Amino acid sequence: MKIDVAKLSSELLAGKRKALAKAITLIESKKAEHRKVAKELLEKILPYSGKSVRIGISGVPGVGKSTFIEALGLYLIDKGYRVAVLAIDPTSQISGGSILGDKTRMEVLSRRDEAFVRPSPSGGSLGGVARKTRESMFLCEANGYNIIIVETVGIGQSEIKVASMVDFFLLMQLPNAGDELQGIKRGVMEVANAIVINKADSDNMEKAQLAKKQLESALSFFLMSEGGWKVPVLLVSALEKRGIDNVWEVIEKYVRIKKSLGKFFDRRKKQAIDWMWTTVYEGIREMLLENKNVTDLAIDMEKAVIDNKITPSFAADAIIEKFKKTICLEDGL
Amino acid sequence: MKIDVAKLSSELLAGKRKALAKAITLIESKKAEHRKVAKELLEKILPYSGKSVRIGISGVPGVGKSTFIEALGLYLIDKGYRVAVLAIDPTSQISGGSILGDKTRMEVLSRRDEAFVRPSPSGGSLGGVARKTRESMFLCEANGYNIIIVETVGIGQSEIKVASMVDFFLLMQLPNAGDELQGIKRGVMEVANAIVINKADSDNMEKAQLAKKQLESALSFFLMSEGGWKVPVLLVSALEKRGIDNVWEVIEKYVRIKKSLGKFFDRRKKQAIDWMWTTVYEGIREMLLENKNVTDLAIDMEKAVIDNKITPSFAADAIIEKFKKTICLEDGL
Repeated sequence: MKIDVAKLSSELLAGKRKALAKAITLIESKKAEHRKVAKELLEKILPYSGKSVRIGISGVPGVGKSTFIEALGLYLIDKGYRVAVLAIDPTSQISGGSILGDKTRMEVLSRRDEAFVRPSPSGGSLGGVARKTRESMFLCEANGYNIIIVETVGIGQSEIKVASMVDFFLLMQLPNAGDELQGIKRGVMEVANAIVINKADSDNMEKAQLAKKQLESALSFFLMSEGGWKVPVLLVSALEKRGIDNVWEVIEKYVRIKKSLGKFFDRRKKQAIDWMWTTVYEGIREMLLENKNVTDLAIDMEKAVIDNKITPSFAADAIIEKFKKTICLEDGL
Repeated sequence: MKIDVAKLSSELLAGKRKALAKAITLIESKKAEHRKVAKELLEKILPYSGKSVRIGISGVPGVGKSTFIEALGLYLIDKGYRVAVLAIDPTSQISGGSILGDKTRMEVLSRRDEAFVRPSPSGGSLGGVARKTRESMFLCEANGYNIIIVETVGIGQSEIKVASMVDFFLLMQLPNAGDELQGIKRGVMEVANAIVINKADSDNMEKAQLAKKQLESALSFFLMSEGGWKVPVLLVSALEKRGIDNVWEVIEKYVRIKKSLGKFFDRRKKQAIDWMWTTVYEGIREMLLENKNVTDLAIDMEKAVIDNKITPSFAADAIIEKFKKTICLEDGL
């Protein structure tokens, strides 16, 4: 792949669709030469990014994410928006297969000129996949998309990653109530800005209403997010195309409130800085785990800790010491 | 402080109270020479530690932790146990003062020979305070205490730290129901093995019952912990000494089930290994944040990220590179 960065960036900024696909392929590459070019490209287009509403959507398999996102996307296109859908699929790393990666998804939306649907990048750690998606988001914005939807499957740590790159995070739930409700994982409910109960179809309304009531009651146990935003629970039937307009109304309202309080871009700045530091610590962690001197000692230390021969704290001191000794010398040397 | 480790450890193992106080003071010291002696001491006594039930207790100021712990402690002493109460108070770092550190607390319990009450170590990071408390726990066990209660105030990250060092984590709540319930913070409900609603006093029973019902409903939204343990909500009046026996019954039952499944010591081993790695990463993080070359660059990078001049990922790459260059050389050098 020979890349002319000046040409690619001007085509990208001119809204050329092919340039976007090419640019995303570039930033998904791990090759050092491509990373270098990607850095140049991103630095050129970054000043033109950011003019969108970034929406994260998550929910367990079977909740109807594709149907919902297709309905929401088409609704937004009708309102004059250009919609890009990106995905982060943690299952593609684990199983080789992928829950979200199915190419036949969102067929109607994909065919629209105002839409861009891109499956999850494959391979690499969750951190790596998230990095690629975040950079793709900037490219889409520079290409003229003003709604970015980042989809993820609600079975891993990926929700937290997605929540940390969007303006609004929407959690989708099934209309199940009762004692054995859908298990909501650690931290996920706390990052949701709204909850959508999908499949609130005509013949399912009573169950959906009950689930809504129970969810609202559960939500009342949590600290509200900043600025007194009360997380709404919305009934939607993506299949029957009902409730989509309410979801968009809520998102618009949230964005309007946050902007009027000056909090909208504050959140983005905070996200960017947090992202930087998280990447730093993830990188150093990799450095440590790839150092055989350190990992050999760590195996011995784990055994000593389990055998009650050393406390975890002193074991940690020894590992840090080894990390310093084998790959680090004194400051300034 | 001149320390004879052999003498101190044998006195400690013989159950001498003065030796315990001295040993805790030793492990609380930051001086390098003291840390060295503390390491020797801990290595001597570690094989004799572990023979206790470790209970974590948290709740917001005003929930009645001291009254409850005193009542529970006296109840357990009556049953023949020896009870040590340790504290982790994150507020002592922030405010200089301390919510838990009050010396007049648990007066009746403190005066009993079968009890040992130690306030939170002062100064240092949460990680440092938690390390000291964890090591004090081992010392108490070696000294013959078979119930260890670790208390913390429910307003920070300290609950998660406490939950990661105990066998059973108990969250205390006030008997408030209704829409504006007590805010339960991120991750705290997920680590609770039981919830106690305190101040379920005679004249307050109706409110307490309602709060119990609402909490049970909220809990049904969360994944149950391993082994199908259903987190119970218990009504207690520490003031009127009612419900204390139920709490102990629940803890005993939990310990019995976990031991019969072989999960009790598995959890402890996992906690010890997690603790080691957390300490490693916290240590390296400190190393990085104390390196002026790195933090100077980080300040520039934060600005560049906010100004859309570089992506967070590439900014992170630069910081890691600097970290390597200034304090690290190639592996093997």
